[in-house]
Parts: sequence; C-alpha cells; structure tokens
Amino acid sequence: MGSERAYLDYNATAPLLGAAREAMLAALDAGANASSVHMEGRAARHLIDDARAAAAALVGADAAHVVFTSGATEAATTLLTPEWRMGRAPLRIARLLVAASDHPCLLAGGRFASEDVEVLPVDGDGLLDLAALERALSGEAGNGTALLAIHMANNETGVIQPVAEIGRIAKAAGALFVVDAVQAAGRVPLDISAISADFLILSSHKIGGPKGAGAIVGASELLMPAPLVRGGGQEKGHRAGTENVPAIAGFGAAAREALAALGHIQAIEVLRDEIERSVREAAPGAVFYGDGALRLANTSFFSLPGVKAETAQIAFDLAGVALSAGSACSSGRVGPSHVLAAMGHGSEATALRVSIGVATTRSDIDRFSAALGKFVARGAGQEHRAA
Amino acid sequence: MGSERAYLDYNATAPLLGAAREAMLAALDAGANASSVHMEGRAARHLIDDARAAAAALVGADAAHVVFTSGATEAATTLLTPEWRMGRAPLRIARLLVAASDHPCLLAGGRFASEDVEVLPVDGDGLLDLAALERALSGEAGNGTALLAIHMANNETGVIQPVAEIGRIAKAAGALFVVDAVQAAGRVPLDISAISADFLILSSHKIGGPKGAGAIVGASELLMPAPLVRGGGQEKGHRAGTENVPAIAGFGAAAREALAALGHIQAIEVLRDEIERSVREAAPGAVFYGDGALRLANTSFFSLPGVKAETAQIAFDLAGVALSAGSACSSGRVGPSHVLAAMGHGSEATALRVSIGVATTRSDIDRFSAALGKFVARGAGQEHRAA
Repeated sequence: MGSERAYLDYNATAPLLGAAREAMLAALDAGANASSVHMEGRAARHLIDDARAAAAALVGADAAHVVFTSGATEAATTLLTPEWRMGRAPLRIARLLVAASDHPCLLAGGRFASEDVEVLPVDGDGLLDLAALERALSGEAGNGTALLAIHMANNETGVIQPVAEIGRIAKAAGALFVVDAVQAAGRVPLDISAISADFLILSSHKIGGPKGAGAIVGASELLMPAPLVRGGGQEKGHRAGTENVPAIAGFGAAAREALAALGHIQAIEVLRDEIERSVREAAPGAVFYGDGALRLANTSFFSLPGVKAETAQIAFDLAGVALSAGSACSSGRVGPSHVLAAMGHGSEATALRVSIGVATTRSDIDRFSAALGKFVARGAGQEHRAA
Repeated sequence: MGSERAYLDYNATAPLLGAAREAMLAALDAGANASSVHMEGRAARHLIDDARAAAAALVGADAAHVVFTSGATEAATTLLTPEWRMGRAPLRIARLLVAASDHPCLLAGGRFASEDVEVLPVDGDGLLDLAALERALSGEAGNGTALLAIHMANNETGVIQPVAEIGRIAKAAGALFVVDAVQAAGRVPLDISAISADFLILSSHKIGGPKGAGAIVGASELLMPAPLVRGGGQEKGHRAGTENVPAIAGFGAAAREALAALGHIQAIEVLRDEIERSVREAAPGAVFYGDGALRLANTSFFSLPGVKAETAQIAFDLAGVALSAGSACSSGRVGPSHVLAAMGHGSEATALRVSIGVATTRSDIDRFSAALGKFVARGAGQEHRAA
C-alpha cells in the first residue's frame, strides 16, 4: 500500500495546520506558567490573550467572552449545568433540551440530572423538529428556564441545523441557547449574534489546531455557568488549572487561519461531490444520509448496499485510506449510529463517513475511488449473503 | 540584563524536557484521533498506552489504573466528589477532609458541598496535625465514609507530609485516601501501595512534561469517582473527550525520564543549600519556612526582613531571575499565602519561592546571588520604613 495514505477523517480530527504547529512550538519554547508574574509568565499570558482574540474573531464575539477549556467535551459539560450565576446572583436552570442527533457530549446532559433532560426529535435528515421545540418551550411544559443545546453541524452527516431560526424560537421563549459549533467552525461563516446564541462551543483540533484546547464563547459574560474544574483563579475563575499555553496558542493560530480560509473553503465541495459520484458509480444502490438538507461541504455519510461499514472501513484502511464507520467519539467503539437511529433508520444501518479538508487533494480522492472499486469488485455481496 | 536568564520557578512549571518535546512532536506528526480504528488512530492509541505505562511506573502502580486528564486540577475536581461507584453499585462519600496547607485545587473541595468539607489544621512547618486527623475520623465525627485529600509536598515550602503515616490512619478509619503528588512526583521516590493511597494526582508540566496532561492513578479500579467530563467513552468512560495525544505522549516521556533521574535528583539539594546560604549572608534576618521539616531538595521559601516579596520578585525579574512570590496558581494574583497563614504566620508575611530542577546550574545560582546582593545593597529597608 506504499507509504502514502489518504486521510479522509477530518471530522474525527483535522491534521495540524503548519501555522498551528509553529505557534505551538514557539509557545513550548516560551514555556512558563501563564499565571507567573515574571517575564516568562507574562510572555505566556500574552500568547493566551492573542489566541483569545483569534478564537473570538472566528465567531464574531468579544475576546473578553472566551473561556478556554481542555476541549469541547469539557466545554459542553461546563455549559450543560443547572447552576448559573447572573452577576453575583445564583440562577437555576430547570431543564435541558437537546436534539436526538446531537453529539454524545450534549446528549450526556452535562451536570443535569437525567430526568431534567428532554431529547427532541429530528426529521429524516437529522434536522431538529421545530414544532416539537416550540411545544417543549411553551405552555405547561415551559416551567422554569430551559437551556437548549443544539449542534450546528452534525459530525456524522454534516447536516447543518437552521440555528438562526432555532435561536429565534429559543429567545422568544426565554430559553438559554447553547450551540455546539465544533464541526461548523471554520467550515461555514459563524456569527454568535446572528444566530442568537448565548454560548458557542469550539474545539481546536477540529479546525486544524492541536488537541487539548477548546472554548466556551459567550455573547456576554453577564450569565456564566458554575465552574466545572475548580481550584485556582485562571480564566477569571471560570476554569481553574494551569493554562495549556502551547495548545491554546496553536488553537489561536488555527482559528486565524480558519477565518482567513472561510472564503474558499466551499471549494472542497467539488472533491466531496466527486467522492459521492464515485460511490454511486461503484455501488448504484448506495444511500447518502442527510443529502436532502444543507450539509457541510466536506462531509459525506453513506451506506453501501449489503455491506457492513466496519468491514468496508477495515478494507479501506488496508488500502491506505483512513475514513470512519460512524464517529470517533468513543474509545475504539463501533456501535450503531445514534444519529442514523434518530433519523429513523434501524439499528442495522451502518454507514461510512468520508470527511475532507483544506489539505485534501485529488489524488486522495483517486486513492479512495480505487480502494472502493477494488472492495466492491471483491464481492461485497458475500457478507450480505452470509449474514 | 542580557539574553540569559535564570529560571528558578520549577514549582510553577518545569521547563520542558528534551525527551518530552520529542515525544510531543512525534505525536503531533502522528496526528489522528486515538478513538479512530484506522491505522492512524491505532498509532495514536499506542502512544497513549505507552504513556500510561510510564506514568504508572513512576508511582509503582498498574498501567490499567491510570486515567489521563487535562491536568492535576481536573484530576482533583474529579476525585473530590461525593459520588462514586464500587463496581456497578453507587457509593456515597459523606465528607471531605483536607489540610489547611493543601493546594487550592484540593481546598476548593471539588464537587463536595462546602458544608461537607472539613479543613484540618497543620503545625508551624505546615505538617498535618495527626491528632486532629484521628479525631476527625473517629467517634461521633465519623459518620459516613470520609475522603481524605492531602498534598504530599507543598508547592510553596516544599515540606513533605508523612503520607505513609497519614495513610495508615486513614485506612484504619476506613477513609478513602487521595494524595496530591503533583510536587512530589519525580522529586522523591513514590509508591502508591507503600503510602496506602487509593488515588494519586499527577501533573505532567511539573515533572518536565508539557502542559495539558495530568492523571488520576488508582491503587485499583474497583472504586471510581463519577466522571467529571462527560460525553464519549474515552478512558474507559472515566474521562470523556478526544485524548490530547501529544501532551499525553510528552507526559509519558517525562515520567520515564523522571523515574530514571530519581537516583540523583537529591543532588540538587547542594544548589538549594547554596541559595539559602547566600540569602542568609545577604540578609541575616531572613526566615526560611518549613526548614524544620523534611523538605523537597529543590525548594526554598523565605522572607527577607522588611521586604515585600512582590517588590523583591520584580527586582529579581528585572535582574534576569525568574522566581515567585508565593505560588502561581491564579491568574496574576499575588495575595497573602494561605500556606503561611495555615502555618500560623500573619497575613502580612510574604515570601519568595525559589524552586530549581534538573537543568539548574551553578551560574543560575550565581545570578540569583548577584541579584540578591544588589537588591539588598540598594536598601531594601526603605520600603520597610515607608510602610
């Protein structure tokens, strides 16, 4: 299979951008604890402030409203809590609403008791059922303030939720609105005010930054969740623990690059469409999930008729193509996709996810098509007959 | 002040070791999501397993009992919780006992309600009052299982708690025993069983690894705390979120190096003693905190008569010497030391911390002594008279 491989799994993690790598290395060499007041400490502090401005700019927010975390999952667990503060006064949120196709880190419900979490249905493309949302937020169901947490773009299908419309509904009902923008950031233009979000969740490693950094970005800092990680006074007391300066600096560099690249990111749709064309040709019965809705330009999620996704994934891997069977959010687990289930497909439905990015080339696509052709020719139907 | 500086603030963060830097870079280039099942994902998984073995070996534990976190503060917040599981059965811990000289991340109490946290007194050297511990664990105070969380070595004074003795008392009373080994790891030999600890807390960046990684190390995995960061199934479900592979790999390399260096780490005591000698010479009335007890060989915490530590710290910084006035656990905050207060000193007591490590040289010490001499000669007494 040679030394070259095609990495088509950007939604699991995007390869580190050169600028992010450089920023990390510079921060590693700077080295100090950003809370130290000596020269070394102040230099580290400056790197964090710089990254804060970059992360804020990516989503049209104020740098003062960015709280860095160790990643998006920690950010989600921090935001999904009944305990908040409005200035100095405690505020209690009664319940959490999530969508059935949300990422597991939202579905887990954070610090809400499971009986206070309501899972809203989605349609066949995975889009939130807006009528169900309105019902959940209104009338007798509407006791106490609700927090609505919705992913903007799905990690498996790439389907984009109508977040501006959802935001209007949430605000009209007085609900707090948290948007998991992990897969959307850097792939579609994003403005926190335009979608009426109170908070966005970002992840560094999904936009080409290093792992180990994420952020909570607020529309203001009036209302803040009870801290999850407690101890020191870092991040204005919202997140304790020595700041991971190299990861944060790399995140900032990636955010800056992602913002600059937004103008031409849509161009990768041509490559994605080529992937889908080659799938259709090799396997005429292939089913593409979410293609009836607006999708990210980089993602394709499909089933090959009579083929278990896990089997195909292994064959692609051996042929030098890294793609995924579902998502990569649990350790080595490959189970039925809750996203497909939410979209109305049975638990026997399995699908392959191809997700590409800025560094994807036509030769990556050719490698994919060749591997697919070989796999199908080898007789994918065998498994179907045996099962 | 020239381009060379003396970095004498290892307890805030230790400079990145070469081996850790290399391991990080290799992991950055490997790149993938460790939960992906393709070749790239498996390679990332292997790096984590390798680091797990190294972290476990540093403290005489089993690799299977290491849970990686984003750092020690997250590890502490995870362990300091009333909600546990013994196998599949829930177990509730009634109260938390901490020492007054503990690190803020223990004093914050994690997920315990503040009324369930009892702060135990320490003596003039900052050592836990063992009689007070026995009283707190016994008799009518002993309602419900207690969790005792104690730092092994103090971040400000370097004073080492008699953890083996404390562990015996905790075990005799049926309490759960958590040891914050952040400052002790790599500086003194450490064996989780020898001190009867149920869990240790480790930090990567304090032992020469990168920031962004820490660990919970258990004596077994029978009893585990309710996860703090929730979502995916990473770290056997004990800590969700995409693993920070480069930081974890760097942590592992640092742990391996720290273990190998343990045999000769004590040698830096010579340099520390030289620092103290030069302080005594320049300022005969200097007070050294905790020097009546067993201390880490790398730490000195002292007051110069009539000098505010913050003022001296700035003078040292300008003279090219990075040291700290108290600890660096909050953003830029320099307040009275809770450790000194716990040791019975008034809130007007301020102290300088010099903390050194493997890369500290005699010329660093010379730079320190020269800066101190200049500072004292300039008339440190002025401030005293003005105050």
